[in-house]
Amino acid sequence: MSNEPHHTTAEPESEPLRVTRRTALRGAGLASLLAMGTGSARAQRTVLNADTHQSQKETTEPLPSWNDGQAKQAILTFVEAVTTPDSPDFVPPAERIATFDNDGTLWVERPVYAQLAFAIDRIRELAPQHPEWEDEQPFKAVLENDLETLAAASQSEVAELLAVTHAGITTDEFEAIVTDWLNTARHPRFDRRYTELAYQPMLELLSFLRANEFKTFIVSGGGVEFMRQMSEATYGIPPEQVVGSTGKTRYEVRDGEPVLVKLPEVDFVDDEAGKPIGIHKFIGRQPIAAFGNYVGDREMLEWTDAGDGPRLLLLVNHDDAEREYAYSMDEDLTGETSDESSQPFIDVAEEKGWVVASMKDDWEYVFPFEQAES
Amino acid sequence: MSNEPHHTTAEPESEPLRVTRRTALRGAGLASLLAMGTGSARAQRTVLNADTHQSQKETTEPLPSWNDGQAKQAILTFVEAVTTPDSPDFVPPAERIATFDNDGTLWVERPVYAQLAFAIDRIRELAPQHPEWEDEQPFKAVLENDLETLAAASQSEVAELLAVTHAGITTDEFEAIVTDWLNTARHPRFDRRYTELAYQPMLELLSFLRANEFKTFIVSGGGVEFMRQMSEATYGIPPEQVVGSTGKTRYEVRDGEPVLVKLPEVDFVDDEAGKPIGIHKFIGRQPIAAFGNYVGDREMLEWTDAGDGPRLLLLVNHDDAEREYAYSMDEDLTGETSDESSQPFIDVAEEKGWVVASMKDDWEYVFPFEQAES
Repeated sequence: MSNEPHHTTAEPESEPLRVTRRTALRGAGLASLLAMGTGSARAQRTVLNADTHQSQKETTEPLPSWNDGQAKQAILTFVEAVTTPDSPDFVPPAERIATFDNDGTLWVERPVYAQLAFAIDRIRELAPQHPEWEDEQPFKAVLENDLETLAAASQSEVAELLAVTHAGITTDEFEAIVTDWLNTARHPRFDRRYTELAYQPMLELLSFLRANEFKTFIVSGGGVEFMRQMSEATYGIPPEQVVGSTGKTRYEVRDGEPVLVKLPEVDFVDDEAGKPIGIHKFIGRQPIAAFGNYVGDREMLEWTDAGDGPRLLLLVNHDDAEREYAYSMDEDLTGETSDESSQPFIDVAEEKGWVVASMKDDWEYVFPFEQAES
Repeated sequence: MSNEPHHTTAEPESEPLRVTRRTALRGAGLASLLAMGTGSARAQRTVLNADTHQSQKETTEPLPSWNDGQAKQAILTFVEAVTTPDSPDFVPPAERIATFDNDGTLWVERPVYAQLAFAIDRIRELAPQHPEWEDEQPFKAVLENDLETLAAASQSEVAELLAVTHAGITTDEFEAIVTDWLNTARHPRFDRRYTELAYQPMLELLSFLRANEFKTFIVSGGGVEFMRQMSEATYGIPPEQVVGSTGKTRYEVRDGEPVLVKLPEVDFVDDEAGKPIGIHKFIGRQPIAAFGNYVGDREMLEWTDAGDGPRLLLLVNHDDAEREYAYSMDEDLTGETSDESSQPFIDVAEEKGWVVASMKDDWEYVFPFEQAES
C-alpha cells in the first residue's frame, strides 16, 4: 500500500484535454516525416553530445522546470520520506530503484517513435539491395508512404522490423548505424535531433533521484540496442540500466575476431505485461518508483505499486498541443483507442491514486532548448 | 589487443596438477551429500548474514590474501594502468565493467554446484506430492541416489530441472525458498553454509575493483533467481548486476495482487557462447576484465579480450586438493573431459596470454574462515 501524500491526482482543469485532442497535427507530422526523410548513416562514427542534460539550470532548488502543484509536491514528499533516516518510510539506497518508460515519458514519441523513424530511414537506404520489399509489408508501406499501415505499428513491431532488416550484421555495426542516425536525423516538427527532444522536467527528475541515491532504469518497449546508443549521453542512464525489447544474436569468430551477429528473431518484448517480466529478469528487484505515459505502462506501475512501503507512481499526460502534442493515454499513433478496457487509462490511474502530471500545467518548460532561448 | 604486463601465465610448478587429479575425493563428497541431505526450507524467512565479506582483513594493502607472484602483479598493474588519468591505458569509470563467473570462480562448485544441491533437496521435499517422479529422470536419479546421472548435469540442465520443479509458484515464493535453503544447507565436506565458501582472494578482488570504480557483474550459467538471493550479502553484487540463466514467467493478478508465476520453461542459457550473448543483452557494454575457471568461460574471455585497449583475463586453476579441490578446467563433475577440443583449456589460456591463478600457489587463504582461524 502506498502512503497518502504520494498519491495526488491531476488538477481537474487539465482533464478535458486528456481524451479529446486528435490526429490532425500528428497526421501532418507523419506525412512530413515520410516526405522529408530524417537523416542517413554517415561513414564516420561520432560521439553524441551530452548537450541536453548539460543545459540544466544551475540551481539549488530541485526540479526548477516543474511548476508548484500536486505533481511536484508528490515527488518532493516521496523523496523526502524515503531518504530521511528516521522516517518510517526510509528505504536503503540499494533498494531505491526507479523505472522509466522511454517514448512519451522521457522524450517525444510523436508523430512516430524515433525508432520507427529510424527504421523507415534504414528501409529506404537498404531498399535498392532488396527489390523483394516492393511487394512485402511493412516494407511496401514505407516505400509507398502508406501512413496508416505504418503508424499502427507498436514498439515491438518496430523492433521486429529492425531485427528482420538488420539480420546478418554484427551488433557493433548496428550500434554504429544507430549512433550516426541519432547524430544526423531531425524531428519533422521541431527540426532538432531527437536527443534534443528529451523533456527538461524529466531530465531534472532523473538527476534529482540520482542525487538522492536512486538507481534510474529505462524499461521500454523500444529495442535496447537502439536506446543504449543515446541513454547515457541524453539521460545519464548507462547501457546496463536500459531494459527493453531484445533481438536474438549468435556468437561467431570472424577472421579471428569474436562478433555477435544479429538474427532475424525477436527474443523478448518489453511492453505491457512484458514490463514487470523484464524488471524481474533484468533488474531482479521491485522498483519503488515508476514513470510512464500510456496504457502499456499499466502493468509496470501495478507491479511497482504492489506490496508494502512507500511508492511513487507517476504518469505524464500529453495535454499540450501548443508546446508538444495532445493525445490520450490509450490511443496509438493513428488515433485508435485500445479496446482492452472500457475505462480510460487516466481514470484507472486516478482511481488507483497514481500521480498524473499535466504537461501543460505542471511543466514550466518542456524541452531544454526552450529554457536556453528564454 | 591486450598489453603485455596484463598477460602473465601460471607458474610452471602448478601445471602438473591441472589435468591429473581425479574423482576419488569428489565421488565421496557427492555420496555424502546425497546421503546426508543438505538442509530444508524453514517456515520463517531470514536475512542472510553478510559475514563473508565483512570478515575481510582491515588493511591498506590491496589483495592481502594473494601471495606475491605473477597473478597478483598482473591485477595490480592492470588496475593501475586503467585508473591513472594520464596513462595511455586510462579507462573512464563508466566503462570499467568486470564480469565474474560464479561457480568455481567466486565460490566452491564441488562436489556439485550449490544450485544442484538445492535442486536435490527440493525434489526430495516435493517428492511425496509427485509419485510420478519415481519413474521419471532426473527425479528418479535423485530419489535413488544415482550419482552418475546427476553429476553429469550442466548448470543449464539444473536450471531446467528447477524450472520444471517449481512451475506454478510465484517468483516471491521461490526466492523465499532459496533464501531459507541458503541459510540452512551445509556443504558436505566443509560443514558450512555455502555462502561461507566464497573465496577470500576473490572477495578481496571484487572489493579492490569496486574501490577503483569498477562495476562488478556475475555472468554465470546458474539461475539468476538462485544467485540473486546471495550475491549482495556474499559478494556485494546487487541483483541488477547478476546475469545468469533465466526461466520464463507469466504476469498475473491474483486476489488483487500482481504476481509473476514461474513457467516450466527455460528462457535463456547463460553458458559458453551464451555468456557473450548475455553480456550484450543484459549489460550492453564490453567488459574490460573477465574472470572464470572452466572451458564454459572461454567465449566470455574471448569476447572481453576482443578489440583495443587494456584487458585483464584471469582463470582460477583448481589445483589445491588439500584446501579445496583439484580438477582440470575441462572436466565436468563426473571427471569426464569435454571433447570439444583436443587442447586442454589451460593451454589455450596460456597461449592467449590470459592470467592463470593457481589456488595452491597464489592464494594465502582460500576461505574467509581459514583467515579467521589463523
